[in-house]
Amino acid sequence: MENGKLLYAQSGGVTAVINATAAAVVETCRRQKVTAYAARNGILGVLREELIDTTKESPAAIRALRHTPGGAFGSCRYKLKSIDADRAQYERLIGVFRAHDIRWFLYNGGNDSADTALKLSRIGKTLGYDIRCIGVPKTVDNDLAVTDCCPGFGSVAKYTAVSVRECALDVASMADTSTKVFVMEVMGRHAGWIAASAGLAGEHRDDAPHLILFPEITFDAAKFLARVRETVARVGWCVVVASEGIKNPEGKFVSEAGTTDAFGHAQLGGVAPALASLVREKLKLKVHWALPDYLQRSARHIASKTDFDQAVAVGKAAVEYAAEGRNAVMPVIVRTSDSPYRWKIEATALDKIANREKKMPRSYLTRDGFGITAVARNYLSPLIRGEAPPPYGRNGLPEYVALKNVAVSKKLPAWDG
Amino acid sequence: MENGKLLYAQSGGVTAVINATAAAVVETCRRQKVTAYAARNGILGVLREELIDTTKESPAAIRALRHTPGGAFGSCRYKLKSIDADRAQYERLIGVFRAHDIRWFLYNGGNDSADTALKLSRIGKTLGYDIRCIGVPKTVDNDLAVTDCCPGFGSVAKYTAVSVRECALDVASMADTSTKVFVMEVMGRHAGWIAASAGLAGEHRDDAPHLILFPEITFDAAKFLARVRETVARVGWCVVVASEGIKNPEGKFVSEAGTTDAFGHAQLGGVAPALASLVREKLKLKVHWALPDYLQRSARHIASKTDFDQAVAVGKAAVEYAAEGRNAVMPVIVRTSDSPYRWKIEATALDKIANREKKMPRSYLTRDGFGITAVARNYLSPLIRGEAPPPYGRNGLPEYVALKNVAVSKKLPAWDG
Repeated sequence: MENGKLLYAQSGGVTAVINATAAAVVETCRRQKVTAYAARNGILGVLREELIDTTKESPAAIRALRHTPGGAFGSCRYKLKSIDADRAQYERLIGVFRAHDIRWFLYNGGNDSADTALKLSRIGKTLGYDIRCIGVPKTVDNDLAVTDCCPGFGSVAKYTAVSVRECALDVASMADTSTKVFVMEVMGRHAGWIAASAGLAGEHRDDAPHLILFPEITFDAAKFLARVRETVARVGWCVVVASEGIKNPEGKFVSEAGTTDAFGHAQLGGVAPALASLVREKLKLKVHWALPDYLQRSARHIASKTDFDQAVAVGKAAVEYAAEGRNAVMPVIVRTSDSPYRWKIEATALDKIANREKKMPRSYLTRDGFGITAVARNYLSPLIRGEAPPPYGRNGLPEYVALKNVAVSKKLPAWDG
Repeated sequence: MENGKLLYAQSGGVTAVINATAAAVVETCRRQKVTAYAARNGILGVLREELIDTTKESPAAIRALRHTPGGAFGSCRYKLKSIDADRAQYERLIGVFRAHDIRWFLYNGGNDSADTALKLSRIGKTLGYDIRCIGVPKTVDNDLAVTDCCPGFGSVAKYTAVSVRECALDVASMADTSTKVFVMEVMGRHAGWIAASAGLAGEHRDDAPHLILFPEITFDAAKFLARVRETVARVGWCVVVASEGIKNPEGKFVSEAGTTDAFGHAQLGGVAPALASLVREKLKLKVHWALPDYLQRSARHIASKTDFDQAVAVGKAAVEYAAEGRNAVMPVIVRTSDSPYRWKIEATALDKIANREKKMPRSYLTRDGFGITAVARNYLSPLIRGEAPPPYGRNGLPEYVALKNVAVSKKLPAWDG
């Protein structure tokens, strides 16, 4: 690679394996003799000129990043305005790149981040600074265009399927005298990919989950209750997996439909408690519910090996693309075979990915809208295969690393954005 | 062992390792050439004469029970009345024992189950039928008297500590622009043992969890909010672990203080959403919350090896006590050394355990009531040590077993109780 430094940043909601991508980026840079900086808290770290020198980390620390969840350099939820609306912001970014001789920028995130990387890849030319921008895919939502799947998704899918299988055994054994209906809420505001992955927990008719509620299907309380009643009558108990994004026929999120809490305040979301109350009230059945929230996307201890391998592969490929002088591309996962499952990494132009959203095909959902089809299983199943457990210490806890995150000295005036 | 059969039953809330105890019971019986029956759904299966012939299961199936969560024979929440209040019920139990030549009854549960086993051990003599009753400890609540800890607790403790460590990394990496406060609710209506185990996730000051709310300490909203604010100011974010059993100064469960939901119904419990709303309302901070519910006690995939070993050991010991002709005893765990951690199994009279409750010592909680002390760490730490993962199939899911559960032919008229 030419002279200059590579800057890596993490963006948006973190995952169980985004640090595996980060580790692959740093390790590949080290092999290529390129200095890798990281931005603290994503693109904000660039704006604020808060850069981290990853060369100060030991090889062991970077190795340990592979099995550490969360975002080691900090991430952010921050969407840049358009270039027309705030050109100064882009000039600041290029200014920071220039001040620190950053020649490659790798942005690890979802749709928005691909868009940011794309814009930066163009503005560099306008402003006369040669910066190559590579998007690196990551999102538990699995909604990036082009790529077959998104690093981060396979692990949350595995967590979800395993958790459903486990709690179903619990519910089944107690149903005679205790809980008959169990509702588990999963992430997915716009697309039901995570909810769909719960379907992998069951293999036969009457296996849990008995109902999956997708954001793609309008929530119909009467139909839902009828199916729960029917399932309890036939199986003795019922496990429901509900996506946080389900909406009622009026188009309102079920989780936000006017709940108030113990202190009389509007309640923070929660589809699961709302559904649980509905079942208890209308069917007079004992209900329990769970809402794992961040636990599901940070559960590195139950990460999918497939997902882990892909997270590493996109990190490595991104640096290689940079080394080859490519610009405005993203390494994506291409599935070359279902059985045996095979995949490879390919470069795709960022403008084919930025700001697009991959929806779940209707063919993945059963006709009644409460389950997944064989086509969905074929797609989902390989993504949760294999285990990639972290090492455990003698204290029984996973050995996650905290980096030193040594700051690079600032060279510019403070950002006033 | 003499002629006759042994009957094993599971009672109360199931755990990640109660089936490891069941497997040890069945395997030890096989070695001792004793026929082991199991009751379907605990003591109710005895009353209903719904017995399962475990000799119909393959050695591989029983072996797989060791790593399968839930209760393989079904459990129940059912408290027998006193002998004076319902003598007929006890006569029925003895009648079923007599009809099937049951000479040993092993009841795997908590305080109530120990009480049931104790009563049965006495009534046999009164009714002229020689039945030996052995209690077998199990409860995620860790509240059984005498025993140093309870099989089932170590695994939920490990799940809790690992989950807190993982989601803390998530929150830390996003706190700059997103969630600043994360609340995780754990089980424990009367005692804060599970909440305390969350404390193992942190090792240094400012590590998560920053606050633990115990049922032993009255919830003081002002003090809580002040501490959350202080933590966010100092650390940048704050992780709270709250026991479901915390009460306000009026003695009401915080989870039940008049919540209504999206459908206008009284809300099912939920300390976490109540606390989250409080923080959002009073401190204007972005909050997320999680409530893993049954996921925490069925998470066999992250079971503690210590817990697993102890679950096996009590199952084995219970059969051995039966073979020795002992009655009205329970195998309990005795800690013989903290460092290195060592333990052994001893028999204790059931009347020292039945209907008693082990409270968490005040010395386990820090003076401010928001954390655990070094004494608590010494006690808790060994219980989560070691991993005992289940085998995984090629599909990426744990290979849990479903027994055939072949019914024993009934010999008595139906129970009309």
